Amino acid sequence: MKKIILSLITATTLTASFSASAQFAKPEDAIKYRKAALTVTAAHFGRLGAMVQGKVPFDAKLATENAEIVAAMSKLPWGAFGEGTDVGETKAKPEIWKQNAKFKEAADKLQAESVKLVAAAKTGKEDAFKAAFTATAGTCKSCHDDFRSK
Amino acid sequence: MKKIILSLITATTLTASFSASAQFAKPEDAIKYRKAALTVTAAHFGRLGAMVQGKVPFDAKLATENAEIVAAMSKLPWGAFGEGTDVGETKAKPEIWKQNAKFKEAADKLQAESVKLVAAAKTGKEDAFKAAFTATAGTCKSCHDDFRSK
Repeated sequence: MKKIILSLITATTLTASFSASAQFAKPEDAIKYRKAALTVTAAHFGRLGAMVQGKVPFDAKLATENAEIVAAMSKLPWGAFGEGTDVGETKAKPEIWKQNAKFKEAADKLQAESVKLVAAAKTGKEDAFKAAFTATAGTCKSCHDDFRSK
Repeated sequence: MKKIILSLITATTLTASFSASAQFAKPEDAIKYRKAALTVTAAHFGRLGAMVQGKVPFDAKLATENAEIVAAMSKLPWGAFGEGTDVGETKAKPEIWKQNAKFKEAADKLQAESVKLVAAAKTGKEDAFKAAFTATAGTCKSCHDDFRSK
């Protein structure tokens, strides 16, 4: 049942995030926005990574707080990859627009995994948290490999 | 996978409170983070402003969605104004650190008003929403006047 509810939440949030595109006056505004959203996401994900690496002790409350921010942030960048935002200061590869369904799927995966990451952090079980973190990190890497220039 | 996690850990980290501001490896990481958080906040607040100005029609659902993002984002920047982050590419005035209690109070006001903004958007009453937007915008302006260079 939990799994069904999680996937329903994910489906609902995805609709919300992709329907909010074309909100930017200029391509550079969209680029600045999506970079900013991903910077904030990376900061909080890095905090979780420090726990996974044992650089700071696992703390279920802190992990949950940071995972919740990651999950909330994970909805935001995608609407800012609209048509015409492939110009200027960006590492976005043309594949984002050429293979847009695949890109959308990659974005969906991050959102789905980060919802599971919150649930795992909440359990207070470090192993479950580490596994969920690794799964989420995999969605970052996979999308960056395919859609972000070095 | 270890490599992915390691590279993610190099990302800057923070918690959303004044007490834990030493989560950034370098001042420039903190500065990049807080700018990013405020960029995302401004984008969503701007969408609400467009409704208030009548540039787009008032839509309670959209207003609520954007206000919720503003409220969530409004918690984030402040932990990144730690000691020693008054250097480099920043418009942050020295008053942030000289009058830190006043700065914290200004940050708290934004957070309080943006919670009310969500509630007002949810009512679906345009007048209530406009009033709450104006109150929230006032907290932005007041803080920028006191603590941000032109």
